[in-house]
Amino acid sequence: MNYHELVKQIRTKRSFLCIGLDTDIKKIPQHLLSYPDPVFEFNKQIIDATHPYCVAYKPNIAFYESLGSAGWDSLKKTLEYIPENIFTIADAKRGDIGNTSGLYARAFFDKNSSGLDFDSVTVAPYMGEDSVSPFLDYKNKWVILLALTSNKGSRDFQYTKDETGWLFEKVIRTSQRWANHERMMYVVGATHPEEIAHIRSLAPEHFFLVPGVGAQGGSLQEVARNGMNKNCGLLVNSSRNIIYASSTNDFAEAAANEARKMQEEMSTILG
Amino acid sequence: MNYHELVKQIRTKRSFLCIGLDTDIKKIPQHLLSYPDPVFEFNKQIIDATHPYCVAYKPNIAFYESLGSAGWDSLKKTLEYIPENIFTIADAKRGDIGNTSGLYARAFFDKNSSGLDFDSVTVAPYMGEDSVSPFLDYKNKWVILLALTSNKGSRDFQYTKDETGWLFEKVIRTSQRWANHERMMYVVGATHPEEIAHIRSLAPEHFFLVPGVGAQGGSLQEVARNGMNKNCGLLVNSSRNIIYASSTNDFAEAAANEARKMQEEMSTILG
Repeated sequence: MNYHELVKQIRTKRSFLCIGLDTDIKKIPQHLLSYPDPVFEFNKQIIDATHPYCVAYKPNIAFYESLGSAGWDSLKKTLEYIPENIFTIADAKRGDIGNTSGLYARAFFDKNSSGLDFDSVTVAPYMGEDSVSPFLDYKNKWVILLALTSNKGSRDFQYTKDETGWLFEKVIRTSQRWANHERMMYVVGATHPEEIAHIRSLAPEHFFLVPGVGAQGGSLQEVARNGMNKNCGLLVNSSRNIIYASSTNDFAEAAANEARKMQEEMSTILG
Repeated sequence: MNYHELVKQIRTKRSFLCIGLDTDIKKIPQHLLSYPDPVFEFNKQIIDATHPYCVAYKPNIAFYESLGSAGWDSLKKTLEYIPENIFTIADAKRGDIGNTSGLYARAFFDKNSSGLDFDSVTVAPYMGEDSVSPFLDYKNKWVILLALTSNKGSRDFQYTKDETGWLFEKVIRTSQRWANHERMMYVVGATHPEEIAHIRSLAPEHFFLVPGVGAQGGSLQEVARNGMNKNCGLLVNSSRNIIYASSTNDFAEAAANEARKMQEEMSTILG
């Protein structure tokens, strides 16, 4: 999905919600464990119930990988089940030397090789340009680069300050030479509301993927006030608050209720 | 495998060679494609031929992931085939918020969950302490943290300099509060010989996993002169130079020859 199609979906659905599919076999409702593929069954019912309210789904790859090859099969089925008009994000935080990042790109973008065909992948910037550029060799695919993450540990290195500013600012400035806003987004955590407006000034056109609303404590209103641009420019993620809204038989309905609440709040914000 | 066992293996085999299993289905000898699992068959023959000369194997996870769930099956079989007395490294460069890193730890360390049971995993430091510590919750397992990588892009962010020094120095200083040399190693690229002695002074006891000798241009002699400590303290990796030494029927023999040459050079260095 390209930039213009994504903006169109946001306007049509009046939503900039991304739902994180952090599907943990240890947390899903017990009755699903009798299905042949409980992780897929959970995701299928979540997608059926929530797709009217979101514009993106973000499977968190760790959760699938933790189940070995069976997890990769569940991931493939999940990706195939997501409707065509919804943007897909492999939340993988990959990044390695060029030769190896090229293989990660095959893993997430080349259906003929891995069975997967995501629209985008999250990438860690530590190893620099040649760790990121192989993902950009795939036409119409996106890199979502970590800038300022939502966790406590973001304080450890991302605020390292040289004469030009903080490390996360350097990541944003430097990486804009690698791809424009039609091929790259940035991860900007909702737990740093004081920085979002500033980051927006550094990257006025780019989409930000914003984790940290909900379970991690960030506020949707504050993110929107500080981070929105003329084409919205935000994908706000919620994972646990939606998919684990209930742990019993009504989990999909409960998830839909939470997603709808967020969509309604977003509709008001979009004005 | 713990620190003392690793040191003992290095002394016994007179080698600090790590062989990178960057097994690309597009590069292995054609005749292997008729096997039910060509990637595993290649690895099996490489392991049979080279295991006397190395103390560690490092499957590069991207190469397996690029084949989807089939690749994960090949990885599992490969890991099970590696002899018990050889240290195993999942070269995965993972790292995410704590909750998610916990699932990556399950993927690489919890055999009951994923089928995999590596000794160690490479981790990217960008997201800080809580992205690393879940891997350390597994007893007798290691984190190998990226410090100064071997690629050109290492210049982009790792040399960011604040009042305390470069970012890679900060990573090394800060992370020593998270685990000692019996649970943590550092990735230090052979392509930065000018920094290795300095990094050794910052982390006198730790093992360094050193990529970049061979295909990327680093020198074994220079790495040893600058980086060795009283317990060796080095695992020098070679991937392509060994496993793709020949592209025909004699690939395993050719790999053994290259591995033996490195082991002999290492034996001389160990004195």
